[in-house]
Amino acid sequence: MKLAVLGVGLIGGSIGLAARERVEDIDVVGYDARPDALHAAHERGAIDRASPSVAEAVRGADAVFACAPVGALPGLVAEALSQAGEDTVVTDVGSTKRQLAAAVDDPRFIGGHPIAGAESAGVDSARADLFEGAAWYLTPSERSGGLLYERLHGLLVQLGAQPVAIDAETHDRVLAAVSHLPHVMANVLVSQAARRLTQDDERLPRVGPSFRDMTRVAGANPGIWTDIYLSNAEAIADEIDAAVHVLNQVSLWLRGEAGDALTGWSETARGDRRRLLEADLAGGPVCELTVTVPNRPGIVAQVALALGRGGVNIADMSLAPAQDMRSGAMTLWIAGQDDADRAAKLIEELGYPVASVPE
Amino acid sequence: MKLAVLGVGLIGGSIGLAARERVEDIDVVGYDARPDALHAAHERGAIDRASPSVAEAVRGADAVFACAPVGALPGLVAEALSQAGEDTVVTDVGSTKRQLAAAVDDPRFIGGHPIAGAESAGVDSARADLFEGAAWYLTPSERSGGLLYERLHGLLVQLGAQPVAIDAETHDRVLAAVSHLPHVMANVLVSQAARRLTQDDERLPRVGPSFRDMTRVAGANPGIWTDIYLSNAEAIADEIDAAVHVLNQVSLWLRGEAGDALTGWSETARGDRRRLLEADLAGGPVCELTVTVPNRPGIVAQVALALGRGGVNIADMSLAPAQDMRSGAMTLWIAGQDDADRAAKLIEELGYPVASVPE
Repeated sequence: MKLAVLGVGLIGGSIGLAARERVEDIDVVGYDARPDALHAAHERGAIDRASPSVAEAVRGADAVFACAPVGALPGLVAEALSQAGEDTVVTDVGSTKRQLAAAVDDPRFIGGHPIAGAESAGVDSARADLFEGAAWYLTPSERSGGLLYERLHGLLVQLGAQPVAIDAETHDRVLAAVSHLPHVMANVLVSQAARRLTQDDERLPRVGPSFRDMTRVAGANPGIWTDIYLSNAEAIADEIDAAVHVLNQVSLWLRGEAGDALTGWSETARGDRRRLLEADLAGGPVCELTVTVPNRPGIVAQVALALGRGGVNIADMSLAPAQDMRSGAMTLWIAGQDDADRAAKLIEELGYPVASVPE
Repeated sequence: MKLAVLGVGLIGGSIGLAARERVEDIDVVGYDARPDALHAAHERGAIDRASPSVAEAVRGADAVFACAPVGALPGLVAEALSQAGEDTVVTDVGSTKRQLAAAVDDPRFIGGHPIAGAESAGVDSARADLFEGAAWYLTPSERSGGLLYERLHGLLVQLGAQPVAIDAETHDRVLAAVSHLPHVMANVLVSQAARRLTQDDERLPRVGPSFRDMTRVAGANPGIWTDIYLSNAEAIADEIDAAVHVLNQVSLWLRGEAGDALTGWSETARGDRRRLLEADLAGGPVCELTVTVPNRPGIVAQVALALGRGGVNIADMSLAPAQDMRSGAMTLWIAGQDDADRAAKLIEELGYPVASVPE
């Protein structure tokens, strides 16, 4: 089987590494507009051969992966399709799908979007196991060829991924809610706080943990994000408008001192969060433990090691150091009541008080 | 010196523990409406004596700390003032200050708000070092007695805190921006995502790390938060309205495909976030490292231990496990370029690729 990877950064490089490690009789040809990236991918072992052009890379390929920023995908996919043979499946790895689906009308094209950790860019961060167990959305159209879909699906499974078919429109609406809107909100929060602190000539010695958690993604790579925003503009704008509707309601409740309405709204959010976390993690209801610890190098290690020795995996964690960075609260989310109980016991044996958040 | 602590949970209990450990010739009297809490505080060593009434607790006290939920403070503070002598300073530890300041007109009252980790409630989580290095806001009015302010300030320093005077109005406006608005946003995000996923009959196998980061505080204790919302209703509503103004603008940019405006807005947010983090942490510019790691018990420990041995402290961290929980990205924030460089080197020696996020 011959694979062409167009764009050999984190995702393209990981596709190459995974294919070369896991797929028998595979031949991975790489192309990249940046010669140094292509060279690095070859050095890294992510591709068998480097190709000087898209045309040469896709010639005779069974599958083509277009791995470029969202804004560059329509052009790259069109070029690949124009050069590829009749029996080639062409896919991409972009974060939004509707725009590309609308731009490409070819039975050989099937849009894709792997949900894989991609915070650091470049082939140096590529890994053969990046897609292990990861969802990989596929957005076939009614025109997509069945045999080509089957081939792509099988290939993704070999890479370790779990392909999930979804229509492009739904994909983009869902991602607008769980990824794009949070980014917008983070930007709003961080700029509003900066303005407020400047305006009041205040320098808060330490903003709260909730603020830090919520603004981590603020201002993430503006170039890449503008691409994503524009390629899903309508769905994101819809989500923003829906959020504005709720915010206006909450503002009215506040000004009207409607305590019961506010409590009801918080309780709904509490239930929604729990349901989302439970759907998100397979291990059963998610339990939340808060541990009060001194905050010194090694303390996270001590707790993590104790749980590791006890066979408890930490689904998620959040550290909230106090002002002086010498003490603080560590919140751990553990899937399953049994594991959570065991975790609490192990941590208490270390001498740190543990509180479970009640339902 | 005689101290009265009214309400002996996490904060009140920690005040008692810190005072008994750090202040010479101290006598701590505790009162709590819940007899079992009072008993537990005495067992814990957080108070010298339990008192059956507010009147008896504050009799002859040099300082009184009212430690109750925001909604109960006006009544508790009024009762304490009515029973306390002329030379007693009465303070509180509530998260909002303006409402209480408006309700109390007494030269013996000075509002207070320690910024200390308080995720887990109850005297069992109380610690003598809870306030070590923590900012402790004080909101004296023009009528507050100078000698009483000096006494309270000196006492807080002995507890390990750093008292910061701020007017009640500004305090509440700043907290609305950096704490209360983020909570509102988290509630909005989580409920909107839940609705969207239900509506589309979709169950995202794994929401992104940004979503989890941003919704950790969603639905936090609805009762306590309704109190906070109501006691700072106008400032929070103002922040919401300001956020709505920006969100409406972003929605228009999206529908108008105004890429440059979106990029400029993201870049402003990027700069704002960096400035806030730098103001927040003393150690110099904050550097962001992203590490690609297998996600198994012990891996956080391994990295944290390596940095701990190298004397590098982790200011903040975020784990983004991949779908299968077997791999993922760990983002670390380290204060100071030198420490960040050393951290990157130590982690690379463990065999994990490290990427620094460029400016």
